[in-house]
Amino acid sequence: MGHPKSITLYTAKICPYAQRVEIALAEAKVEYKAYQVDLSNKPEWFAPKVNPASKVPAIAYGGPDVDPESPSSESTKLAESLVLVEFIADLYPEANLLPKDPTLRAKARFFVEVVNSKFLPMRFILHNEPYQSILDTATVIQSLLPESGKYAMGDEYTIADIAFTPFYARFKLSVENEIGAYEYGKGREILNALQAPKYAKFNAYVDRLLERPSFKATFDEVKLTTKTIYRGC
Amino acid sequence: MGHPKSITLYTAKICPYAQRVEIALAEAKVEYKAYQVDLSNKPEWFAPKVNPASKVPAIAYGGPDVDPESPSSESTKLAESLVLVEFIADLYPEANLLPKDPTLRAKARFFVEVVNSKFLPMRFILHNEPYQSILDTATVIQSLLPESGKYAMGDEYTIADIAFTPFYARFKLSVENEIGAYEYGKGREILNALQAPKYAKFNAYVDRLLERPSFKATFDEVKLTTKTIYRGC
Repeated sequence: MGHPKSITLYTAKICPYAQRVEIALAEAKVEYKAYQVDLSNKPEWFAPKVNPASKVPAIAYGGPDVDPESPSSESTKLAESLVLVEFIADLYPEANLLPKDPTLRAKARFFVEVVNSKFLPMRFILHNEPYQSILDTATVIQSLLPESGKYAMGDEYTIADIAFTPFYARFKLSVENEIGAYEYGKGREILNALQAPKYAKFNAYVDRLLERPSFKATFDEVKLTTKTIYRGC
Repeated sequence: MGHPKSITLYTAKICPYAQRVEIALAEAKVEYKAYQVDLSNKPEWFAPKVNPASKVPAIAYGGPDVDPESPSSESTKLAESLVLVEFIADLYPEANLLPKDPTLRAKARFFVEVVNSKFLPMRFILHNEPYQSILDTATVIQSLLPESGKYAMGDEYTIADIAFTPFYARFKLSVENEIGAYEYGKGREILNALQAPKYAKFNAYVDRLLERPSFKATFDEVKLTTKTIYRGC
């Protein structure tokens, strides 16, 4: 594959999609430049020179060593959080972010698809929709967990966990602090509901996700509690 | 990786998601059992024994040689079309369904993400929404095509093309035959709009997609024109 080239990550602390890529880079022990994009006031060069969709996360890969505010046309620009996580997994196979076995790789990607399409707590947090679907999804996620092992695919921490961790963390922060568009007290309500014994395996799993050093090193709790949880990344 | 095991594909001719997997298997020249699921009357064993989401495509991988109507608990059950296409790419690397270079792999997956999330012709076909977004997406897809080469990633036919081909084919069949919930004549209208010179590169690309033998061998035009294009797979 050749030696990996330099990486500049355009990111934002508030954004769970961006944190997926930060976690993957931390797991692979990659040194990279991080540029914080102000999501409420994006620099005018960002869309034309980095990501036409004007979203974080985005990566400039390779090319000359430049100021992130003056991206070079010689670097390759890549976007979409799950694409970038697979990219890091491909560049750094020794980080074991994907299992080696094709069947287990498929299971990891299936887990990613489930959390990405079904764990949608922002519908409750930002739009005050009923929280029952969050509990239902916790049941589905729990059913996918292995009989033994710390994480979604066993003892290795993989893209399956990476895809979920930032979203679960923001959900927990919201409901523990009653931050959101929902009625005060509903945060406590869903937290209590999740304490039921039938979610024990799910809870043990998510506790381990939040203990993972790559997560802790990339999560900025103070900044998140002083803003709305996230929008528009 | 070891020798790939037997594959039973639960599929339906009408379903574009299922056709993605049929194309990938044809490209990799895999021998497999295909079981046609009647989407309007799914067998009662399908959800509990194959795919809890009760959707095609799904694969039973490995295990003893059994009748597809009596799936063995010893085979691994896998689902979600894009997960399955990556699975085939992993099992049969010699089919080159994914580029070897990590940057090109990321670009292929980005193309998949774009067609999967933005090329949504069923909103026009089934719900009579304005067709302008289809034209806009053709422009986006065209902008991602390489300067030279027959397909999305150059001369190799990859997961990028596989993700798009079945959806484009059903769109074309619908508008050419005015089959859908839209007003009669609108099919002709969007076809005419797409003939504009600014879509020339897009048109040359999609023409090549429909010429691909793996597509032709897995597309059942007669069956599709006699039913609605698709629902519920």
